[in-house]
Amino acid sequence: MNQNNFCIIMAGGFGSRFWPLCDNNNPKQFIDIMGNGQSMLQNTFHRYAQVCPRENIIIVTAEGYGKRVHSQIPDLESYQVLEEPMRRNTAPCVAWAASVIESINPNANVIVTPSDHAIFGDRLFVEKMNKAIDAANRFDWIITVGVRPSNPNTKYGYIQFSESASCKDIPDLHKVVTFTEKPPIEMARQFIHTGEFFWNAGIFIWRLDVLKEAFSQYLPVVYNTLHGMGADVDRQQLLQNYTRIDSISIDYGIIEKASNVHVLEADFGWSDVETWELLYNASGKDANNNAILAGDVMTYDVKNCLVNAPGVDATIVLQGLDGYIVTANKGVLMVCQRDQQENIARFMTDYELRQHRKK
Amino acid sequence: MNQNNFCIIMAGGFGSRFWPLCDNNNPKQFIDIMGNGQSMLQNTFHRYAQVCPRENIIIVTAEGYGKRVHSQIPDLESYQVLEEPMRRNTAPCVAWAASVIESINPNANVIVTPSDHAIFGDRLFVEKMNKAIDAANRFDWIITVGVRPSNPNTKYGYIQFSESASCKDIPDLHKVVTFTEKPPIEMARQFIHTGEFFWNAGIFIWRLDVLKEAFSQYLPVVYNTLHGMGADVDRQQLLQNYTRIDSISIDYGIIEKASNVHVLEADFGWSDVETWELLYNASGKDANNNAILAGDVMTYDVKNCLVNAPGVDATIVLQGLDGYIVTANKGVLMVCQRDQQENIARFMTDYELRQHRKK
Repeated sequence: MNQNNFCIIMAGGFGSRFWPLCDNNNPKQFIDIMGNGQSMLQNTFHRYAQVCPRENIIIVTAEGYGKRVHSQIPDLESYQVLEEPMRRNTAPCVAWAASVIESINPNANVIVTPSDHAIFGDRLFVEKMNKAIDAANRFDWIITVGVRPSNPNTKYGYIQFSESASCKDIPDLHKVVTFTEKPPIEMARQFIHTGEFFWNAGIFIWRLDVLKEAFSQYLPVVYNTLHGMGADVDRQQLLQNYTRIDSISIDYGIIEKASNVHVLEADFGWSDVETWELLYNASGKDANNNAILAGDVMTYDVKNCLVNAPGVDATIVLQGLDGYIVTANKGVLMVCQRDQQENIARFMTDYELRQHRKK
Repeated sequence: MNQNNFCIIMAGGFGSRFWPLCDNNNPKQFIDIMGNGQSMLQNTFHRYAQVCPRENIIIVTAEGYGKRVHSQIPDLESYQVLEEPMRRNTAPCVAWAASVIESINPNANVIVTPSDHAIFGDRLFVEKMNKAIDAANRFDWIITVGVRPSNPNTKYGYIQFSESASCKDIPDLHKVVTFTEKPPIEMARQFIHTGEFFWNAGIFIWRLDVLKEAFSQYLPVVYNTLHGMGADVDRQQLLQNYTRIDSISIDYGIIEKASNVHVLEADFGWSDVETWELLYNASGKDANNNAILAGDVMTYDVKNCLVNAPGVDATIVLQGLDGYIVTANKGVLMVCQRDQQENIARFMTDYELRQHRKK
């Protein structure tokens, strides 16, 4: 394993899309959404630990979540867990982590990754990452990862790529032509029809010097403000610096503007698992098309259901359900039609109001 | 209140029809099936305490359930809770309790009642019981209670009654012509069509001397074996006596054979609540025809459902269910179509097997 390989895991997300498994105090990256016994963050850490030495993995999270990270992944050094003092989207997060990495190894290869996506096929994934690092070492390029789209999803970012390979010996690497974030449905259909588009998996692989150059060129205020900050920076100083910079994503701030972005086609399975429906799609099914992810569950004449109930100390007996989500966590048990899941946010609001009134 | 009024509550039933609320350790009479905050037994006791002095109510239950009775109904004297040493159906249960009553008051009027039926309209019920006791005092009759049938239920007993009133001033009391237990559906339809049949509510009102006479005539072995036994009878002796007698119901052993049985028509609501469906029918509904009996429940687009989940410490959020039973008790949560409830016994067996395997 190349000792120069580093990874920045962005684990500052919040939200409650998977209520009642998740809520604002328990965002998705810390929860075992997939029902595999590990949180999304744990899955992500262990995946990248096959590409980078453990001590080279930096996890950036939001203020207050540091303890959670340490408890989920034991034996991390303090420099490996960075708590941002306020939410400023992904660009500042990467800038600070890169600054910490520079203080350790100026010759680093840096992978930037979300903490809450699902990857299927770890061996293919590791091979692909090593290939990306190899390309990043040979060329002054920003490497992204593209997923062949299976449907015209309008919530993803699309990467148009040049037909020819970026270099002879890496036939699955292509120069990026355009980025389009969340296209209208007709446009997404057209994208898929042409065969020239990938989904953007949100993973970036670049050498540290290429990363620094990109930040100084496209986001100079972010770069100048956060550059030189270590993991043990004075918190007051850190807060002051963060208040001085804008909230901006690394995609919008750099990747979509840079001219040296290349995309490597993923052959492993990928899902951002942003919704119950995507989780259902990404999960293994039984003979009746049920994804039973967690919980002690007995089913009779149940089909097309997603069951994920890790947080309830009871056997769940289900009969005659077709197309439902059944989930339970401490305090809430929910049965909801899969095609009505957009209403779950409302159920959560109603529930919180109800809990508030009880006090 | 007439100090001669006594009541025998038969609370020895077992079974698990309402699993997971009930199981063989938690039979229906001890459970709050109706969702009114009281067990069926507590409901029954408080209902009859409006007809009989509290200290005149005798509860007969199965060996091991006595503590349960005392804990559900505080301040009972020891003679008020009789634990039968083995299950011998209802006739021996009544014979022993009558023997205990005789030792207290030989002039007793005795009401015999199940412990797990639902009665709606306590005021009408009390009036009707007093009318029955009045009739039992004036005539040497066995008075039963008949419910006007609303459908050709094949699980009930049917009482054919004489059109004319048994006596001028009690127009709702009729001589019984025939008893038919659980008729075939065509016969039940015919019964209803004639208008000459009631359902048998399983409640009997008679003077103690009439009761004794009936036992000595129709069930002399039961009578002779158990007569004279007090509440504090030696348990070994009691067991020996019980082993000597047959298992027989009071309906089959006496009521269906006696020629002096009269039936008083009930004007209060009644249900034996033997199934989830009967419980649903007997329960109050919300605007969407849901019977939400117990539990902290939030519903969205839910209709024709029965929810009774007293034993779960969670809010239950339901969306898009039509015609389901949702119930939970410590250790089990169940969602099952109302029209598939006959399968619940199988679910319970499967569950118990599963629990057994886990050990």
